[in-house]
Amino acid sequence: MMTERMELESRIMEWLDELAECSEDPAELTRRYLTREHAQAVEIIMRLMREAGMSARLDAVGNVVGSYPGRRPGARRLILGSHQDTVRNAGRFDGALGVLLPIACIGSLHARGERLDYPIDVIAFGDEEGVRFQATLLGSRAVAGALDPEVLDAVDDDGVHLHEAMRRFGLDPDATGDAGYDRDEVAAFVEVHIEQGPVLEAEDLPVGVVTSIAGATRLRVEVMGRAGHAGTVPMNLRRDALAAASEAVIAVERICLEIPGTVGTVGVLRTVSGAVNVIPGVVEFTIDVRGESDDSRRDALARIDEAFGKIASRRGVLFDSVPTHETGARLCSPRIMRRLGEAIAAEGFEVRRLPSGAGHDAMAMADLTEIGMLFVRCKDGISHHPAESMTAADAGVAARVLLRFLEQFDSEEREGTDREQRAA
Amino acid sequence: MMTERMELESRIMEWLDELAECSEDPAELTRRYLTREHAQAVEIIMRLMREAGMSARLDAVGNVVGSYPGRRPGARRLILGSHQDTVRNAGRFDGALGVLLPIACIGSLHARGERLDYPIDVIAFGDEEGVRFQATLLGSRAVAGALDPEVLDAVDDDGVHLHEAMRRFGLDPDATGDAGYDRDEVAAFVEVHIEQGPVLEAEDLPVGVVTSIAGATRLRVEVMGRAGHAGTVPMNLRRDALAAASEAVIAVERICLEIPGTVGTVGVLRTVSGAVNVIPGVVEFTIDVRGESDDSRRDALARIDEAFGKIASRRGVLFDSVPTHETGARLCSPRIMRRLGEAIAAEGFEVRRLPSGAGHDAMAMADLTEIGMLFVRCKDGISHHPAESMTAADAGVAARVLLRFLEQFDSEEREGTDREQRAA
Repeated sequence: MMTERMELESRIMEWLDELAECSEDPAELTRRYLTREHAQAVEIIMRLMREAGMSARLDAVGNVVGSYPGRRPGARRLILGSHQDTVRNAGRFDGALGVLLPIACIGSLHARGERLDYPIDVIAFGDEEGVRFQATLLGSRAVAGALDPEVLDAVDDDGVHLHEAMRRFGLDPDATGDAGYDRDEVAAFVEVHIEQGPVLEAEDLPVGVVTSIAGATRLRVEVMGRAGHAGTVPMNLRRDALAAASEAVIAVERICLEIPGTVGTVGVLRTVSGAVNVIPGVVEFTIDVRGESDDSRRDALARIDEAFGKIASRRGVLFDSVPTHETGARLCSPRIMRRLGEAIAAEGFEVRRLPSGAGHDAMAMADLTEIGMLFVRCKDGISHHPAESMTAADAGVAARVLLRFLEQFDSEEREGTDREQRAA
Repeated sequence: MMTERMELESRIMEWLDELAECSEDPAELTRRYLTREHAQAVEIIMRLMREAGMSARLDAVGNVVGSYPGRRPGARRLILGSHQDTVRNAGRFDGALGVLLPIACIGSLHARGERLDYPIDVIAFGDEEGVRFQATLLGSRAVAGALDPEVLDAVDDDGVHLHEAMRRFGLDPDATGDAGYDRDEVAAFVEVHIEQGPVLEAEDLPVGVVTSIAGATRLRVEVMGRAGHAGTVPMNLRRDALAAASEAVIAVERICLEIPGTVGTVGVLRTVSGAVNVIPGVVEFTIDVRGESDDSRRDALARIDEAFGKIASRRGVLFDSVPTHETGARLCSPRIMRRLGEAIAAEGFEVRRLPSGAGHDAMAMADLTEIGMLFVRCKDGISHHPAESMTAADAGVAARVLLRFLEQFDSEEREGTDREQRAA
């Protein structure tokens, strides 16, 4: 077993290095959807899938789909996977880990000559980041049967339409519907991904079980006070827009500290037409609030709104908030969370449940089937950056956890999709 | 007396309108030092001075000096005045009121055939705002004998040196020293000026006695925290530079509210390389602290520094503060404050003492002699803007207060200059 573990670790890390060679820029890692480098990545991934005992094919939107048959006829299919594409100047682990680690696990099963009751597909989604066509999750949305045909008219920076880029890649843009799965034949989707945050590292744990992919609301806020001379207006006669905005920033922080499962960030703030000797009259800032559940997010937003109202009336300023973005939370399946937890415990680690604040392919797959995610510790919480890093040992732990999960998974157990549970 | 009062009011307001006609831009009021419009203003002011019974001359740096002789030989001279120049797109009262109102008062004495024991000079300083040569108080610094000769090399936006502009105006740049007064022959300098702030309006008072011209310290501050993903970093693991900066803004406000006679302003603040979905890693802001006394300003700065230290250590961020500007406070003469207060009380108004947060010619004149200032209520605290406004009635009150002051003033009483008092 020691040999298999070390083999798994080194195999995954080598494959991550190999895949990172496919880059549009030799000096940094950038691999966008439907580029020549995407095609190179497809070739590598197909080869690795086949070496792991899987059949491999390119689907109608450029996702690579590897299939490992099950023993029991008619059993529902488990889908594993993540995305092959990257942001500009990316790290090597975001997305790629969730493609290559499952292939390595199936390679281990294959090497042992072992088949599971149910069939497994591993998918390398062509686009998740949305860098090229400013539309995210194109690969997983197609697989979930939720790709809006209008998105095919999107244009990249060079003026190339998505449908034209698909044709050049050898795909038929009129056949994107073929990428969709029949929901009755799918048991669940499980994604392995680096955490992209600092929680597991702070708690000295290699892996964690994701509870939900947070919903997000973004607002643009303008605070209108009264500009004035910094020397001549006494403190008690001011309507300082920046002092009000500063209280607002602190309120967002305090409220999201108090409500479990939420985070709130003021990422951009500036005094408008400010000068060193002028009391700020107008301040603009952004808010990004995310919640493990939609209830917690809405609770935070309501309390933020209430806090802003109090600041405004106490200080005689006006707050004007405009929502600019909203997505609902996607809850992970309780039975998958439980099974992943059992596998982690069996490997001797504490089971840490945590929400995902970032978006993932599992968000789109939640429209098709139950979802689950296994987070892997990364260094300093850094992602979308060349300094993105994780250890071979953690890759090994995650692979063994996934293998245990696969061995215990019951493809015929049902708890319903997130959408079905909400409707119920 | 009713007639004289109404005459005074309407005369001052008419003259303010007439002087405002001298503008480089027909659509807005802009009158910079040593321009053609400055020369036009000189002509008007000289005419008004002569009509008021004064002799009038242009001094070596372009100040207009009107002299009204006294009865007693050898008596020390009282100087009244303010500046003729304006900011760009200015109001009509800033500076001009302090030139024209004293001329009107002396015109009243002259009309009555009345002379005082001591001689009075009224000066219309050529430059106070510093708009053209980016060096302020050129006129009053020359009169105080404190004009650095290097300033003559300053260049305006059109590449014209100050010494060349002086020559074109008919002045000899090698003779600027001639503008200086002999300090033994000067009793005091008194400046009438609109408040440029909201205090008198808020307290429903037409005039107030200035206690000091506040000293100012300006700082540029950088806060360094740790950037991070707005979704993946939990609230308790953040080192948010903006949350820290927001506490700093509130601390500046709180401290300057607590320490009487100080004001503190964060006029410019911005997140550096901020994005809606990124926890701010770096924030920059400015601080402007002013104090009625140097002690109160230094006390505020020390407490701000202490507060920043606490915020930094609690939040795990760094504050880096760099001073960018510092001027000491200029205290008004107690005997002039007392005399002005007596004149206000005799006119039936409450005596309100208040510091000046803005700079004035009196700052430079404090290097020559004792200073005093009479503030006049303005509308909404607005200045340096076309909406700058004050009432004729308040101009009348201020003129009557100044007349009473002139009649009571004893030019031989001595309390020493601000500098002498400090040295003592």
